[in-house]
Amino acid sequence: VDRAACERADADDPLAGHRDRIALPSGVIYLDGNSLGPLHRDVAERVRQVVEVEWGEGLITSWNASALRPGWVDLPARVAAKLAPWVGADADEIAVVDSTSVDVFKALAAACRLRPDRRVILTDDANFPTDIYVARGLAELLGDREVRVVPTLEVADHLDDDVAVLTLTHVDYRTGRRHDAAGLTAAAHDVGALTVWDLSHSTGALAVDLHAWSADLAVGCTYKYLDGGPGSPAFIYVARRWHDRASTPLQGWFGHEHPFAFAPDYEPAAGAARFLDGTPPVLSLSALDAALGLRADVDPETAEAKARWLTSLFVERVDARLDDEVEVVTPRDPTQRGAQVSLRHPQARAVMSALIERGVIGDHRPPDLLRFGFSPLVVRSVDVFDAVEVLAEVLGTRAWDTPEHRAPRTVT
Amino acid sequence: VDRAACERADADDPLAGHRDRIALPSGVIYLDGNSLGPLHRDVAERVRQVVEVEWGEGLITSWNASALRPGWVDLPARVAAKLAPWVGADADEIAVVDSTSVDVFKALAAACRLRPDRRVILTDDANFPTDIYVARGLAELLGDREVRVVPTLEVADHLDDDVAVLTLTHVDYRTGRRHDAAGLTAAAHDVGALTVWDLSHSTGALAVDLHAWSADLAVGCTYKYLDGGPGSPAFIYVARRWHDRASTPLQGWFGHEHPFAFAPDYEPAAGAARFLDGTPPVLSLSALDAALGLRADVDPETAEAKARWLTSLFVERVDARLDDEVEVVTPRDPTQRGAQVSLRHPQARAVMSALIERGVIGDHRPPDLLRFGFSPLVVRSVDVFDAVEVLAEVLGTRAWDTPEHRAPRTVT
Repeated sequence: VDRAACERADADDPLAGHRDRIALPSGVIYLDGNSLGPLHRDVAERVRQVVEVEWGEGLITSWNASALRPGWVDLPARVAAKLAPWVGADADEIAVVDSTSVDVFKALAAACRLRPDRRVILTDDANFPTDIYVARGLAELLGDREVRVVPTLEVADHLDDDVAVLTLTHVDYRTGRRHDAAGLTAAAHDVGALTVWDLSHSTGALAVDLHAWSADLAVGCTYKYLDGGPGSPAFIYVARRWHDRASTPLQGWFGHEHPFAFAPDYEPAAGAARFLDGTPPVLSLSALDAALGLRADVDPETAEAKARWLTSLFVERVDARLDDEVEVVTPRDPTQRGAQVSLRHPQARAVMSALIERGVIGDHRPPDLLRFGFSPLVVRSVDVFDAVEVLAEVLGTRAWDTPEHRAPRTVT
Repeated sequence: VDRAACERADADDPLAGHRDRIALPSGVIYLDGNSLGPLHRDVAERVRQVVEVEWGEGLITSWNASALRPGWVDLPARVAAKLAPWVGADADEIAVVDSTSVDVFKALAAACRLRPDRRVILTDDANFPTDIYVARGLAELLGDREVRVVPTLEVADHLDDDVAVLTLTHVDYRTGRRHDAAGLTAAAHDVGALTVWDLSHSTGALAVDLHAWSADLAVGCTYKYLDGGPGSPAFIYVARRWHDRASTPLQGWFGHEHPFAFAPDYEPAAGAARFLDGTPPVLSLSALDAALGLRADVDPETAEAKARWLTSLFVERVDARLDDEVEVVTPRDPTQRGAQVSLRHPQARAVMSALIERGVIGDHRPPDLLRFGFSPLVVRSVDVFDAVEVLAEVLGTRAWDTPEHRAPRTVT
């Protein structure tokens, strides 16, 4: 594949129109949409409206629906409805609320309550660290549960009658490896366990289908492939078959059937909406609402197909240009991975710093991974081609080998 | 007090400069800053910068500190440092995170762990409903705890050796009555119980002094008197003497000592920062940061003195103009109340609707309360004078008695 072929692929890309609405700085190739999605111009305008008009002029009355606009009170439900198709769910199976960490806590607590006689929360060593911290925090609070962390390739072997819930991140944040979610859900159900899937590294880039998986509960992040903005609220999924019995330990007023009745007793709202709790962060939630609105006409299958193409193109170009300087740690079978590719290099942090200096933005994960995300609504084929050329130059000239690039960096 | 006296008071008001920076619509008298504080012009500009420059141009690199600006990673700590003086705390005793509901859960869970052999969470029937829902949710999760709800004037009588934690809202959201926080904290300590104070209806309007109270834990809202914006993050206070032993059940990565090490094991950060958990909502948190920055030069004692003056002026004008049509349910002793005054009227909802139509914005609380907040950095003396005149007109002409005003409203 040469650069002209990439240009032709971009010209034929059904998602190209979305790329044109993104406010990327000139000269930047952005391959970190798996960590923080970029800003769409319409999202900036929506936030401005919410701040200056809804808050500034509407003040407290903006909570109510009016002839001018829908009220903030229903904003979480409106966002849930827009998000649901991206995970193969119905709108009332989704609550957009809190952070992923807090939603993991709520989902695991709900699952444990539905399996009161089983003591194990099973997860793998590829799970995102906060998911494991939170599971242990819940186990310590409950006193009678144990978090069992097993090697990621051996998860199925550890499913047994003690397991209350199997919780995994669908796509490994480091390697990009994708679990067989439908298969593992079925295996969990075979031993009577429930599942809590963390979709943070899938949603928005892959055609996630929670109904097809027969998933029980799930959570996910919205500031990665969904472009919701830094720290935009997470979501929690509760399958319809659990709506009558699933409960949240965080019984807050926004999850009440009638929050503004200020009733003395808690009465859970119907469906997943009971997993709402405190007052939602309206500014952050509105940015997400606008971002989701922009992709209302995108079929998740189209997004996944493009992610597959982009990651395959990247791997092909890496093979062609980089010899043995890096190791592709992401599965080469595109059905086994998400929308990211990770490369191993002993000086990953310094290499990424040199790439960023040249306008190619990915990130690194300790100790030795270069991580590149290929958000299908953001990245073009020419971006992939050009990024590998820059990477080849950085490695070939050892441009990373300076004190500045070797200095510690916090996030990227 | 006539209107000319109010004008003179405004001319002499040391807080008048702040009022001039608020973007209130013309013709509006805003007496609902106790529910949602108004927008300051500098806050709107800060949010625009965060969206368009930090997110739009800086992208993922904005998490890091750089020569251009401090990074988002430390934003919760920077906001905590600005908030701390408003509650009489040190910066490392505060974490700005989640919603008040979620923080109530974390604070009560921490307190229960510090008193493992006591079974009662004691609260009163004047507490904000979500605090009670959350306490019950925690008790159900733990299994061995009981939430005891007692009449608000009898709280001290119910303190005994069974009480693990006393949790109260400092200022009653309905009546505006203020608890004797120092006295009740001492009484709780006398029986070996801890306290969790909800400062949602105090912070920013009163000179809260958690150190002077010998408080243990506290939480509060930032979108009321602190003007942080709709749904801005809440805060949690953990007294220094508990820093070695207090733990959060929501062990998320932002509360880890080294979040970006992605370590397999949880290592709590020092101080209250361990009560951080998921990725913070940067847009909402930045608005709060800007709002707090604007009041960095305000002494909380000055704010409380003005709140006392404004509420006293309102009560005096109500007495002078409204006869027996309404009942003042807020304590007439200014040391016994917060910065709000509530009036009882059987058609409170319709009356408030008619007031809002005339530009006087307060809110109502079912079944029969008109609620007026006197945010000291927002409200002028002439606003108080004029608001009572409008209220007198609405009541005198029964302007509220129309189908439109009697129609249900959700929030205000």
